Amino acid sequence: MATPRGLLIVNTGNGKGKTTAALGTALRTLGHELPVCVIQFVKGTWKYGELFAAKQFGDLLELHVMGKGFIFKEENVDKNRGIARRGWDLAKQVLAEGRHHLVVLDELTYLVKYGLVPEDEILADLAGRPPHVHVIVTGRGATGRLIEMADLVTEMREVKHPLRSGIKAQKGIEF
Amino acid sequence: MATPRGLLIVNTGNGKGKTTAALGTALRTLGHELPVCVIQFVKGTWKYGELFAAKQFGDLLELHVMGKGFIFKEENVDKNRGIARRGWDLAKQVLAEGRHHLVVLDELTYLVKYGLVPEDEILADLAGRPPHVHVIVTGRGATGRLIEMADLVTEMREVKHPLRSGIKAQKGIEF
Repeated sequence: MATPRGLLIVNTGNGKGKTTAALGTALRTLGHELPVCVIQFVKGTWKYGELFAAKQFGDLLELHVMGKGFIFKEENVDKNRGIARRGWDLAKQVLAEGRHHLVVLDELTYLVKYGLVPEDEILADLAGRPPHVHVIVTGRGATGRLIEMADLVTEMREVKHPLRSGIKAQKGIEF
Repeated sequence: MATPRGLLIVNTGNGKGKTTAALGTALRTLGHELPVCVIQFVKGTWKYGELFAAKQFGDLLELHVMGKGFIFKEENVDKNRGIARRGWDLAKQVLAEGRHHLVVLDELTYLVKYGLVPEDEILADLAGRPPHVHVIVTGRGATGRLIEMADLVTEMREVKHPLRSGIKAQKGIEF
């Protein structure tokens, strides 16, 4: 049997549940009274409901929202790159410290997809983290290199979506 | 725009994250201080970590573990049927009361798959619930009829799994 070591988990695909499943795993970790850090690279993925619930766990849960200023236009590439850089520098530091049992890098794939932080750097920092730290990366379009490095990869595949049939997003369920 | 109504959500597929995503959604709902009921039809899907974490929410979260006695052998069909029946009778009652914003029916697909409760009955009870009640059904092998009735269906598809490569299950992550 292999020695216990921190897993690199990737939740990808175009369906629901990538972030929600990461949140569920974080709750499991917090239930063991083990510390969790969540870095949200794009604002808005974690909604009011879970942010409020997160407060129940006090200092065990550290939450950073980095992507408040992202603007999805060509002329904002430099601004976006600055935000992404600050986000990854924080992630790098959190990973290296090894203080958390689990680090959730929510929507990290976005940084790679838009070329905001070099993938080589991200993969090297992930590979070089202290061996006990578990990491969950979420986001659409995980690259082949990230999947190759990961221990556990799940694709959330959208089979049916209510917003397509004109049903409004629902409080307490979708936000 | 359609009137807000309770969604029927299905998390299926052979990958990870079906129950964990339901748990994440439950956390979101609890964060709004809206009541949640979880009925776990097969023991063990909700692990120590989340059961402990669930206590943080007191009366807002009602949790029932029904499937303690299931034995997966031919000669236990009658016993299993009795357990499943008690489980579904409880679910039926919880749905009809309409006291919860969200009802999670964890591993419900198992009851249908093994013919323990008639699918017609389950679908009729789901269809007849008070309109404001959201429901999440989890489990492998959701049937075509359930998917047809559902508003939102996600397939969690296993792309890569660590236990296949001899890595032990990890505390605070997988239980």
